[in-house]
Amino acid sequence: MKNYQGYLIDLDGTVYLGKERIPYAREFINALNEKGLPHLFVTNNSSKRPDQVAKKLRDMDIPAETDQVFTTSMATATFLSKKKPDASVYAIGEVGLLDALSDHQLELVDEDADFVVIGIDRDVTYEKLAKGCLNINDGAGFISTNADVTIPTERGFLPGNGSLTSVLEVATGQKPTFIGKPQAIIMEQALEKLGLPKEETLMVGDNYPTDISAGMNAGLDTLLVLTGVTKREDLKHVEKQPTYVMNHLKEWLDQMK
Amino acid sequence: MKNYQGYLIDLDGTVYLGKERIPYAREFINALNEKGLPHLFVTNNSSKRPDQVAKKLRDMDIPAETDQVFTTSMATATFLSKKKPDASVYAIGEVGLLDALSDHQLELVDEDADFVVIGIDRDVTYEKLAKGCLNINDGAGFISTNADVTIPTERGFLPGNGSLTSVLEVATGQKPTFIGKPQAIIMEQALEKLGLPKEETLMVGDNYPTDISAGMNAGLDTLLVLTGVTKREDLKHVEKQPTYVMNHLKEWLDQMK
Repeated sequence: MKNYQGYLIDLDGTVYLGKERIPYAREFINALNEKGLPHLFVTNNSSKRPDQVAKKLRDMDIPAETDQVFTTSMATATFLSKKKPDASVYAIGEVGLLDALSDHQLELVDEDADFVVIGIDRDVTYEKLAKGCLNINDGAGFISTNADVTIPTERGFLPGNGSLTSVLEVATGQKPTFIGKPQAIIMEQALEKLGLPKEETLMVGDNYPTDISAGMNAGLDTLLVLTGVTKREDLKHVEKQPTYVMNHLKEWLDQMK
Repeated sequence: MKNYQGYLIDLDGTVYLGKERIPYAREFINALNEKGLPHLFVTNNSSKRPDQVAKKLRDMDIPAETDQVFTTSMATATFLSKKKPDASVYAIGEVGLLDALSDHQLELVDEDADFVVIGIDRDVTYEKLAKGCLNINDGAGFISTNADVTIPTERGFLPGNGSLTSVLEVATGQKPTFIGKPQAIIMEQALEKLGLPKEETLMVGDNYPTDISAGMNAGLDTLLVLTGVTKREDLKHVEKQPTYVMNHLKEWLDQMK
């Protein structure tokens, strides 16, 4: 087992499940802190601001600072401001996305936007989708925070941002640029923020199609924990295996010692 | 030119364009009435009730009775009540759809629906889409009034029902049954209402992918009028040609005499 200098860590299914902390997640984060190993929580949830995510973790007794959280909304805003500083953006999304765009000095507009950005929006309306279409048809670039087709909730699987994005995709005939996991975009930005080379960093997550694929796409070693979406038998159907597969984070902790 | 005993006629692009009557549409309908030739207006617009559509036509001085209008909402309600009389339906749509379902004694419910039906809904919300997903995941049949990806408006192309439907399709992984043109379902019902065999009936429309394909799929002869969506050069790219292609309805009128 390699001695990694830093960690990128998924949240839902890895650290918590909905409102419940996953066993050994706290011990794992505590161990990283004790050893002084830098780590970032990397999430496809575009709806929350990083301070809200950090608070949720601390409320579960998991140590987390705001600057240890990297959301796909932050990655999207960074991506856009690198493409065109001071770009104008027509945004469909919740506070996590809108605040990230404003934090990066991107101008939120209704018309003549340089980019249309869509993230999960539980207050979506036909008019918002219509404006998204019109801006894309007028030549705006088309960006989506993430392609997750569903959100797991206590009620069942509800439409995720990948499903909402499909309205704009089908109506305009244009394909969006996705930013979140499994894309390398979010991972490369997270690595830059962490300040470590990919060879020294481990991606930890529960979801093969998003977390593990994201790690692979960005050239990182990967640890799949079987505490969330992906089951061991799912791995029979994929060609490229994670670097490590463990039932829970305790197995990793034991090896770190 | 064959002497047809009845006509199925598209509306937008054939009889009117938005709020404007298309030249010779009135003369064409007047000629059908003078000759006593039965005809139905067949529309993929699920949002309006047939009396509202007939009134819009009469406001343009085009003779039309309520029972000469056949909407995809009426076809959808008929389809469902044949499948299961008194079925329970979770519906996303506007008054034209909701009234058609009620007219067919279908029960509108939020949960445990036999079918989920989606038509264009300019008041769509995330919660409506969420309930659609949950019902489909719980085993409800999945029906969509039509697959039109856009609606042409004065503002530009806005999302059509095919685009809204994609949210449920992507989020549930299920394919819907579409009812409207180009499907044969709506055409076969329209023929039944008209009371004529397909060999005696002509489908008239401006849109090759919907109107003309619908006629072909149901085994009717077709007249493409070049007053709307499809242009003569578009026909170079399709294998099966319409039975007749005309610049406008005057050419057909001249041949009827």
